[in-house]
Amino acid sequence: MKQTFSNYAQRLQPLAIREILSKARRPGVIPFIAGNPDPALFPADGIVRQAAHVLDEIGPSTLQYGDSQGYLPLREWVAARYGQFDPQNVLIISGSQQALDLSAKLFIAPGDKVLIASPTYSGALSTYSVYGADFIPVPCDSEGMLSGPLQEALAEGPCLIYAIPNYMNPTGVCMSLERRRELAALAQRHGVPIVEDDPYGELRFEGERLPNLVELAPEHVFYAGTFSKIVAPGLRLGWIISPSWAIEKLVGAKQISDLQSAWYTQHLMAELVEDNFMDHHILKLRNHYRQQRDHMMTAIERYFPAEAAVLSPSGGMFVWVELPKGVDTTALLETALEQDVAYMPGSAFYPDGSGHNTLRLSFTLATLEQIDQGIKTLGVLFKNSLPDAKQA
Amino acid sequence: MKQTFSNYAQRLQPLAIREILSKARRPGVIPFIAGNPDPALFPADGIVRQAAHVLDEIGPSTLQYGDSQGYLPLREWVAARYGQFDPQNVLIISGSQQALDLSAKLFIAPGDKVLIASPTYSGALSTYSVYGADFIPVPCDSEGMLSGPLQEALAEGPCLIYAIPNYMNPTGVCMSLERRRELAALAQRHGVPIVEDDPYGELRFEGERLPNLVELAPEHVFYAGTFSKIVAPGLRLGWIISPSWAIEKLVGAKQISDLQSAWYTQHLMAELVEDNFMDHHILKLRNHYRQQRDHMMTAIERYFPAEAAVLSPSGGMFVWVELPKGVDTTALLETALEQDVAYMPGSAFYPDGSGHNTLRLSFTLATLEQIDQGIKTLGVLFKNSLPDAKQA
Repeated sequence: MKQTFSNYAQRLQPLAIREILSKARRPGVIPFIAGNPDPALFPADGIVRQAAHVLDEIGPSTLQYGDSQGYLPLREWVAARYGQFDPQNVLIISGSQQALDLSAKLFIAPGDKVLIASPTYSGALSTYSVYGADFIPVPCDSEGMLSGPLQEALAEGPCLIYAIPNYMNPTGVCMSLERRRELAALAQRHGVPIVEDDPYGELRFEGERLPNLVELAPEHVFYAGTFSKIVAPGLRLGWIISPSWAIEKLVGAKQISDLQSAWYTQHLMAELVEDNFMDHHILKLRNHYRQQRDHMMTAIERYFPAEAAVLSPSGGMFVWVELPKGVDTTALLETALEQDVAYMPGSAFYPDGSGHNTLRLSFTLATLEQIDQGIKTLGVLFKNSLPDAKQA
Repeated sequence: MKQTFSNYAQRLQPLAIREILSKARRPGVIPFIAGNPDPALFPADGIVRQAAHVLDEIGPSTLQYGDSQGYLPLREWVAARYGQFDPQNVLIISGSQQALDLSAKLFIAPGDKVLIASPTYSGALSTYSVYGADFIPVPCDSEGMLSGPLQEALAEGPCLIYAIPNYMNPTGVCMSLERRRELAALAQRHGVPIVEDDPYGELRFEGERLPNLVELAPEHVFYAGTFSKIVAPGLRLGWIISPSWAIEKLVGAKQISDLQSAWYTQHLMAELVEDNFMDHHILKLRNHYRQQRDHMMTAIERYFPAEAAVLSPSGGMFVWVELPKGVDTTALLETALEQDVAYMPGSAFYPDGSGHNTLRLSFTLATLEQIDQGIKTLGVLFKNSLPDAKQA
């Protein structure tokens, strides 16, 4: 059999880091690695109750094929919660990864340029690069993408901007209001669509809610949300709020991809989020994850070398660490795993694979004791790895 | 906002027939139109029971992110039921539409040719054409694709063959063993992958089970199956059995598309299909749909004009009707809908939009009374539409 794969398929490459990541899933390893929510916080009782309720109350039609755009009551809930949108601009999708895929289908041809923050979510890098995109990376500070480089990047003619304004993956940075306004205005001026990826916006630990880009430039922004971080990933449900001019194409691309998201779990979710369940539940998530963030920051203060630059996030799931140049966090991960601690090396988040001295720590899956123990272990490891460290 | 859609997006066109199809969903219309299973046959009790059971017995990890290739016990069930395959060759997907999308991603570049039976499933035509494929149609008789035209078509160098050997959509034809062997051998000789789409294979009303193409040429066939017709479409679960040389690419493409199919409903399904539930359930489906097929064929015999050529299927969901040349079933559908009967005009199944004198009738959603009434109404309509009919 000759293997005549398409160019798309040829660009699909196994991640070099995959083998090491699989070692990180060994039981007993302290899990600072993945952006997974804590299963203890999944509303399992509500899900089981609604699984029965929708069949009792609405009937077996909930198990039938459905509308490609999604179940209207669920679209209405999304439209009302995330701004005053029209449910006709909402598409229900199977988790926000599908928003990356659909936006690539709609806008990217091989050789097109995608403007990104650097570092940014590795899943966006791998998705857009499989579609043949080149990246225009824009460096960031603690308020988001830097203004000068952003303007220069837009002059290069990107077909798409990818941004995570709220508690960005991997750095945890929350983009300031001023930078949001600037990015929205630049997208409008240059006529470039933005994919606003917002898995973490609801997980705000302090500070005021800032407007999403989709509220500032609704004709230019595809807002991708997900129930994965606020309900459970295992239901694979999310949404896109789309400009009116693109919603028909988006629904068409969704239909080609998988006809529609599961009609049954869309009903289940629509029932689950009713009656302010979500407000109470999200308050619970915020309190829980805030405590874990605090615990991790306290441990880092205590155990990490002074040379480590650490960003304390005001929401989300991640703490970003920059060690002195010369420290190689990918190489160190092997040692960390031997000592039963896993983290995500930062180079996975840079389109050019740089950032060797950076790493991402997730505080969502570890117990408070594990956070203490794991950060202590890493602190010793990092101190011993500093360029001027006396080898122990 | 300039709307700089990709070529993919530009090829996404709304179906011309969509407006008329939406009229067909009006309550009170006899539903011969869609290939939907009967909701009364969905195993709702089992689904509710397993929705609770997987959380009670396995726990909240069933609601977490999961393996992109799919839940191993579910892959094992598929691998054992549909031949003696290795679960490592099975990918769980979100309904078999996703098999069309993934196969397009892996094999089709714009301008590539896809070999199809003509007529064939309209969803395959629209999916592959959005990826820029041209079609090489092969005419069929009551045993499947005709041998001579098939060989000529393969000489044109298709990148992919799309086939529905069991109770083909739309004609209901079951490909003969000889034709299966020939198609498998030709694919092997020419080194062309086959997408074997098999939503209906389990719905066999009579006759012996014939081997699937994937059993005859496992190194060349991507076998797509689905729980939509045998359990319920609203869970969006299906599978691909893939040759070993392609499974890694396929899993990668799945990951880019939506990370993985829903971990929770995969667990639910794996529990549901255990303990021979499926054998009993499929027997029930066969008996039910066989009775409806019989009832429809009897009514057709009684009411349709003698000039109608009608294929009685030995399984599946569809009866295919060919009226004399000159009858336009798309135009007639408007009248049929005024008389509260819906069917699918046949031209949707031809890549060149021909087949104006053909139609597809589904017998799965209508009651026996509706089948009588609907076929009677259509019989009068068709008799009056014959080229030599005296207008009533």
